[in-house]
Amino acid sequence: MLVVGELLNASRKAVKTAIMNQDAPCVAELARSQAEAGAHYIDVNAGVFLDREPQYLAWLVQVVQEAVDLPCALDSPNPKAMEAAMEVHQGTPMINSISLEKDRWETLLPLAAHNQCKVVALCTSDEGMPKTREQRVAIAEKMIDGLLAQGVKAENIYVDPLVQPIATDVSFGTQFLLAMEDILSRFPGVHTMCGLSNISFGLPARQMLNRTFMALAIGRGLDGAIINPLDREMMAVIAASEALVGKDCFCMNYIRAYRAGALENQTD
Amino acid sequence: MLVVGELLNASRKAVKTAIMNQDAPCVAELARSQAEAGAHYIDVNAGVFLDREPQYLAWLVQVVQEAVDLPCALDSPNPKAMEAAMEVHQGTPMINSISLEKDRWETLLPLAAHNQCKVVALCTSDEGMPKTREQRVAIAEKMIDGLLAQGVKAENIYVDPLVQPIATDVSFGTQFLLAMEDILSRFPGVHTMCGLSNISFGLPARQMLNRTFMALAIGRGLDGAIINPLDREMMAVIAASEALVGKDCFCMNYIRAYRAGALENQTD
Repeated sequence: MLVVGELLNASRKAVKTAIMNQDAPCVAELARSQAEAGAHYIDVNAGVFLDREPQYLAWLVQVVQEAVDLPCALDSPNPKAMEAAMEVHQGTPMINSISLEKDRWETLLPLAAHNQCKVVALCTSDEGMPKTREQRVAIAEKMIDGLLAQGVKAENIYVDPLVQPIATDVSFGTQFLLAMEDILSRFPGVHTMCGLSNISFGLPARQMLNRTFMALAIGRGLDGAIINPLDREMMAVIAASEALVGKDCFCMNYIRAYRAGALENQTD
Repeated sequence: MLVVGELLNASRKAVKTAIMNQDAPCVAELARSQAEAGAHYIDVNAGVFLDREPQYLAWLVQVVQEAVDLPCALDSPNPKAMEAAMEVHQGTPMINSISLEKDRWETLLPLAAHNQCKVVALCTSDEGMPKTREQRVAIAEKMIDGLLAQGVKAENIYVDPLVQPIATDVSFGTQFLLAMEDILSRFPGVHTMCGLSNISFGLPARQMLNRTFMALAIGRGLDGAIINPLDREMMAVIAASEALVGKDCFCMNYIRAYRAGALENQTD
């Protein structure tokens, strides 16, 4: 499971303030704590700053990479911000995210291809958000074909089938899960990714739904997630799910997590 | 989800003692608490008593049915115990369980058919326990064919594909899950059932694994389980999973569980 740590997002008030104050120690600490909790990429987002987004996104990348030895997921639809961030990024970043929306597709595709980035490909288009399994797969197919045609390797593509709230339509969970399974079986080598908290929008006890949906998604092949890695229960569900679907050889990661106290609220 | 409450099992020391002492209030309380927590059947087992099993199993049925308005799951391979229990049972019991082991099959099949019981059909045979998806489905097919041939209705058959520990073989979780999906798609109308705690045998933090496996199993169609209904976290995972796979119209059961405080350790 490729874990992208989601906390350095300027839509969170504390992060916005830290960026405005150019508070590098605060940003560095948020990067370090996510890295220690098991993040493989640190997501950086400065979208609320509009004109200053390029400057701030590049600054976030620099502060994060001075603090931790990890690549960033550059979370912006703005090509100027993306270019500024890429210029200072060490190693290969992830682009979060491209979609079939024309503007986003045309501006981010060349950047992704030229820099051989990993790319999150979010299943949405100018025709709106997909509802069914088939609509998701159709959008995924167009994006995958387009990315491969530009020389992006299959292994660098992370399709996000787009989670939508079950409070809106009870079939949305299943449509997402089956779309993910279809995508993984039809496009060998391609990965999947999702930010899943939207599944529980409008319902109570959201974390229980989010964690349970993580298990269901791993059960259908999910191999990447944009989450808060400091959410210990979520990380425990990921470890348990991967052991249960046979992705954890001799259950060694699960046993290691237990020994490290990461499952410590659990009884035997 | 059809919930069979597992607590009235004489392999548990407190239950064994209560049976030996003919302590009806203790047995009645264990029946009531499981019913209030959402059980649809109360499993009764007096297997440790050997010669006195028929007498004790019948007594358990009577005490349970005086306490709660629920049917029992009669948990015995012993036809004498089964007959004694059926004689006093009000309404239609569940037989837990038949299997393809010759003795068990030949003695319990006529009872199941004659009384139009619900039957748990456990995927094991005289050739031993199945390891693969295909072996499970093959045993299930023989049992389903045999039960249908004797007039048992498909809707009364609950196939248990047999959970085995992932600590023994990391593929056992997936083999079980895929077998369950196969059985549900190949035999319309048939249900599934399992006691799943064996999945975590030999590993630490077992309840985390058991709960997560419940989500994965519901994700593949599981619609019955033999569990401890007083395990609130397990019941919460069941409610969340059923909402997420579209089995909970407008998420009303989930919202009701929240309002009843059944998800109360969960944050929004």
